[in-house]
Amino acid sequence: MPSYVVGVDFGTESGRAVIIDTADGRELGSSVYPYQNGVIDEHLPAPDDDVRLDPEWALQDPDDYIRTFSEAVPAALAAAGVDAGDVVGVGIDFTACTMMPTLADGTSLATLPHLRRQPHAWVKLWKHHAAQPEADRINEVARLRGEAWLDRYGGKISSEWFYSKALQILDEAPAIYEAADRLIEAADWVVWRLTGVETRNSCTAGYKAIWSKQDGFPGRDYFAALDPRLADVVDRKMSRHVSPIGERAGGLTEEAAGWTGLRPGTAVAVANVDAHVSVPAATVTGPGRMVMVMGTSICHMVLGEKPAVVEGMCGVVEDGILPGLFGYEAGQSAVGDIFAWFVDNLVPPEYHEAAQREGLDVHGLLEREAATLAPGQSGLVALDWWNGNRSVLVDVDLSGLLLGATLATKAPEIYRALIEATAFGTRMIIESFEASGVPVHDIVACGGLPERNRLLMQIYADVTRREMAVAESPQTPALGSAMWAAVAAGAAAGGYDSIEDAAAAMARLRSERHVPDAARAAVYDDLYEEYKTLHDYFGRGTNDVMKRLRALRDRVLAG
Amino acid sequence: MPSYVVGVDFGTESGRAVIIDTADGRELGSSVYPYQNGVIDEHLPAPDDDVRLDPEWALQDPDDYIRTFSEAVPAALAAAGVDAGDVVGVGIDFTACTMMPTLADGTSLATLPHLRRQPHAWVKLWKHHAAQPEADRINEVARLRGEAWLDRYGGKISSEWFYSKALQILDEAPAIYEAADRLIEAADWVVWRLTGVETRNSCTAGYKAIWSKQDGFPGRDYFAALDPRLADVVDRKMSRHVSPIGERAGGLTEEAAGWTGLRPGTAVAVANVDAHVSVPAATVTGPGRMVMVMGTSICHMVLGEKPAVVEGMCGVVEDGILPGLFGYEAGQSAVGDIFAWFVDNLVPPEYHEAAQREGLDVHGLLEREAATLAPGQSGLVALDWWNGNRSVLVDVDLSGLLLGATLATKAPEIYRALIEATAFGTRMIIESFEASGVPVHDIVACGGLPERNRLLMQIYADVTRREMAVAESPQTPALGSAMWAAVAAGAAAGGYDSIEDAAAAMARLRSERHVPDAARAAVYDDLYEEYKTLHDYFGRGTNDVMKRLRALRDRVLAG
Repeated sequence: MPSYVVGVDFGTESGRAVIIDTADGRELGSSVYPYQNGVIDEHLPAPDDDVRLDPEWALQDPDDYIRTFSEAVPAALAAAGVDAGDVVGVGIDFTACTMMPTLADGTSLATLPHLRRQPHAWVKLWKHHAAQPEADRINEVARLRGEAWLDRYGGKISSEWFYSKALQILDEAPAIYEAADRLIEAADWVVWRLTGVETRNSCTAGYKAIWSKQDGFPGRDYFAALDPRLADVVDRKMSRHVSPIGERAGGLTEEAAGWTGLRPGTAVAVANVDAHVSVPAATVTGPGRMVMVMGTSICHMVLGEKPAVVEGMCGVVEDGILPGLFGYEAGQSAVGDIFAWFVDNLVPPEYHEAAQREGLDVHGLLEREAATLAPGQSGLVALDWWNGNRSVLVDVDLSGLLLGATLATKAPEIYRALIEATAFGTRMIIESFEASGVPVHDIVACGGLPERNRLLMQIYADVTRREMAVAESPQTPALGSAMWAAVAAGAAAGGYDSIEDAAAAMARLRSERHVPDAARAAVYDDLYEEYKTLHDYFGRGTNDVMKRLRALRDRVLAG
Repeated sequence: MPSYVVGVDFGTESGRAVIIDTADGRELGSSVYPYQNGVIDEHLPAPDDDVRLDPEWALQDPDDYIRTFSEAVPAALAAAGVDAGDVVGVGIDFTACTMMPTLADGTSLATLPHLRRQPHAWVKLWKHHAAQPEADRINEVARLRGEAWLDRYGGKISSEWFYSKALQILDEAPAIYEAADRLIEAADWVVWRLTGVETRNSCTAGYKAIWSKQDGFPGRDYFAALDPRLADVVDRKMSRHVSPIGERAGGLTEEAAGWTGLRPGTAVAVANVDAHVSVPAATVTGPGRMVMVMGTSICHMVLGEKPAVVEGMCGVVEDGILPGLFGYEAGQSAVGDIFAWFVDNLVPPEYHEAAQREGLDVHGLLEREAATLAPGQSGLVALDWWNGNRSVLVDVDLSGLLLGATLATKAPEIYRALIEATAFGTRMIIESFEASGVPVHDIVACGGLPERNRLLMQIYADVTRREMAVAESPQTPALGSAMWAAVAAGAAAGGYDSIEDAAAAMARLRSERHVPDAARAAVYDDLYEEYKTLHDYFGRGTNDVMKRLRALRDRVLAG
C-alpha cells in the first residue's frame, strides 16, 4: 500500500508544501503560498496601515501560516495526484526564532480586535532586529552572574532570539506582555493549531531559548535579575516540557483536516527549524559529516556524541538536531550576500553586457571568468566579514577587507577572492570543531548556492581539503520535514520508526563529488595561513581598526 | 619693446610649444605636435616594423623631437600673432630619464642605416622597464660597497634611470654600447641639436644619473664592479661638466633657427625636467612650500637650504630644481591611476548611465556623490599601494588594501576612500620631510587632477592640515620652460637675471584656496592614525603578506 507524507517549509516570504513518497523520498508534487502580508516592516496591514513600524522591525501575520496550510497543501496534493487518504504524516519546519504572544487557548493576540493595532501583539519574525538593547542586557547580566550556559552559545545571545524578543515586549508594551498567557515559537503554534496540543520542540528551545536537556532553562534568579516581572516567564508563559524532535505531537484536528483535505488524526510531528531538518535530508544522521546550508549566509551543522565547548558556536543542543546526539551549529553571517553585493555594486557595464549577450546572469559570467584563474594567480586575499563574523569570533562590528589589488586587478579576480575568503571562513570553523574534539571528515552542502556555482563548491573542497557532496533535493528543508512526518507516523502506519531508517530510504546525494585537488589545496594552505594571520590580527584585538571605524561612522551619522 | 619666450614641453605622446609674454607670463599661443611614432613599444617604425620588441620596452624616435620644433614652434608663433624677431629665448623640458646613444657629433645611432634595425640604438623612453635586472645589480653592488650616494635616492636606484638603461645596452648589445661615443639624456641632446653645444643639465644628472655638486658621479671602482667595460663610462661617454639649471646653453644655430622661424643666436636654456620646471611656474622659488604635480601619479618637490637625508626620497640634488638650493623630490607611484582603475573596473552600470544622462563623466559623478559624505562616514580606510609605494617605503611589491566594507558599501564611498588614501600617502611624505628638518608649510598643486577634482583638493587640505593653492597655468611645464628661457636670455635682452625675478613677474596662482576645515581635519587625524598603523604593519615588515602574495602570483604565472 502506498503511503505519503507532507512536509511544509515556512520561509521568510512564503510557505512551501511538498508531497513525498514515504518509500523512496521522491517529491510527487509541491506548491508555494506567498504570504499575503509577507514581511511586515513598514506598517501594519490594512485596515491598520496607519500604524507605522520603526526601522529594524519585522513582523508576520499568523493567519498567513494557516493560509499556507489551507492553500498550499491541497494544491500540492492535487499536483501530486495522490489520494489524501494515503497521507500518513505531516511535518513542518520554520524560520527561527520567530515567536508570538497568544491566549491560553492558542488565540494569537494579533487577531483580537482590541489588540490588533499593537505591533507587539504580532509575530516577531527571525529578522526582527529591534531587540538589541534587550540582548545587550541579557548578555551583560549573564556575564556578570557567570551563567554557565553562555559558553554553549559562543558567549553571546543574539537579539534575534527568544528572550530578547520577549523582553522587548515587556519593556515596550507591558500590557501586551501581561495579556499574553503564552509566548511561543510560531513553529510550535502552528503545530498547536493543527493538533490542539501545545508542544515545545527541543530544537528551538535549545538553540533559541537557552534550554538544555540536562539543565533545562536558565533559573528564576537570572530572569529576575533581568526584570522582576520576567522572573516566572518559563512557568507562567512557556513550558518546562520540551518535546524531542521526531516525536508525534498529535493528530490533525477535524478543523485542520478540513483545511487540507487530509484525514483527521493524521500524525503531526513536533515542529523543527529549516536548517536543522536539512541535516537528515542531506543523508546525515551521525557524527563526522558536516552539513552546510549555503545561501545568503552559511549554517554549519555537525552531530557529536558528547558535549564540547567549541569557540564561537551559535549553539550546541542535545537532541537539537537528532535524538540522542549533540547538535552543533556554527555560522557565517554573509556568503551569498557578499557575492550579491559585489555584483550589485562593483561590476562594470562590460560584464553586464557580456552576460546578456551570452544569456548568462552576471554571477554565471563572473564564475566562468574566475574559473580560468589558478589559486594564487590574482595576488588577492580577503576577509569575509562584510556582515561581521558569527563563527568563530562572534563579532558584528568586524568588516570586510580586500588586500593585494593592483592596477591590473579585474572584477573576476575579486569575485574569486571573495569566494575563497568565505571558504577560508568555513575552514576556520572546521578547525575550531576539530580542535574541540568534534570531527569533520567530509561535507554535504545544500541550499541555493551549491545549485548555482560549481566553482564555489570546488574551491570549498580545495580549501578545506574535504570532499564536498551535494544533497539531491533542491528543497531539503521540506523533504526533511516530510521525513520527520514519516517518523511521527511510525513504521506501523507506513512511516519509519527512526530518522536513520527514514534517511536511508528517503534522502540521497547527487552522484557528483567535489574532490580536493592536491596541487590547488597546497596553494590554498599558504593562502589560508595569510587569512589566519589577518583574521587574528584584525579579529582578536591586535588592531581593532574595524571597530574604531565602525564607531567613528556611527558618531558621524549621529551628527 | 615687447619680448617673448618659447617654452617647449616634451611629453610622452606629444610635444607642446607655447609663446609667453616675458612681461607677465601670459600665454599668447600654443601648438601641440603628436609624435609621428609615439611610444614605440611593439615593433620598430616602418620600414623596420618586422623588428619586434619585448614587453616592458618603450622607445622613441629622436626625429619626433626635431619635428616638434619644426612643426609646433612656428604654429604657436602664428597662433600668438607675434613677431618671431621679438622672441628672446627658448627653453625646453622633457620626460626623464629618457636617454639615447649618439656619435661624437650628436648624430643619433637610430638614424644610421647600419644600426637603425637595432632597438638599442633608439631613444629609451622614461617608462622603458626592461632594465630591471640591471637596476637590481646597480643596487646590490651599491649596497655591498656601502656607496654613500644611495641614501640620497631613498636607498634605491630605479630601473627607469640612466645607468640601468646604459647597462642594459652594454649587457644586450655591446656593439651598440661600443659604437656610442656619447650616452645622453634626450633633453640635453635636443639642446645640443638646437645650439651645437653639448651640455648636461644638473637636474637629470642629479636625479637620474647619481651626480651631486659636491661628489660628482659615482667612482670608477663602482662602475668597474658593475662591469669592467663600464668603468670609464662617465669620462668616455658622458661629461663631468654639468651645467646648472638656468644657464644659457648657447644660441640657436642657423639650421635650428631655420626650423622655427626664430632668430639665429636666440638664447637657449640648459634643458630641464617637466616636473621640476613646474616649481617656479607654480610661483615657488624658496623653501617651505611644496609643489605637487598631480596626475596619474604625484611628484612632490620641496626646496631646502641644506642637505638632509629624508626617508624614501626619489632624490635630493643641489641645484637640481633651483640654483643655490637643494631640490627634494618624493613621489606616489599611483594616484589618478588608482581612480581611473576604479572607474574602469569597478563602477556598475547605474553610475555610467547617470553620468551620461547628466552630461558628466563618471569621475565627475562619483566626485559629486562622494562629496556628500562626511569624513569617516563610509567606515572605510585604504592603503594607496595599487602600484607599489615609492615614498616613503620605496617598495614596488606592496599592493592595495581596502578595509571596512559592509553589505551597504557603495561605489562613491570607495572612490572617496581611495582619494583619502592618496592624501594620507602625501601626509606621510610631508611628515617625513619635516621630521628631517625640511619644512612644508603649504602646498601648490599643478597638473591634471587639481583642474578636474575640487573634492580631491579639499580632502588633501583637510588631511594634510595645509592650505592648498593651484597654479594658474594649466600648462605649468611649458610655462616653466619659458621662464627658464627668459633667465637664459637675461634682463639686458628683455628677460630676467634670476628665476626669482621671472617667477615674480610670470607665475601666478589661482585666487581660490583650499583651506583645512578644523572639524574634518580632526576626523582625518584619527583616520590617518589608522592608515599609519596599517602602513607600518604591512609596509615595514611586520606582515609581509603583500610580498608573499606577489611572489606566489609570480610563481603561479610562471607555471
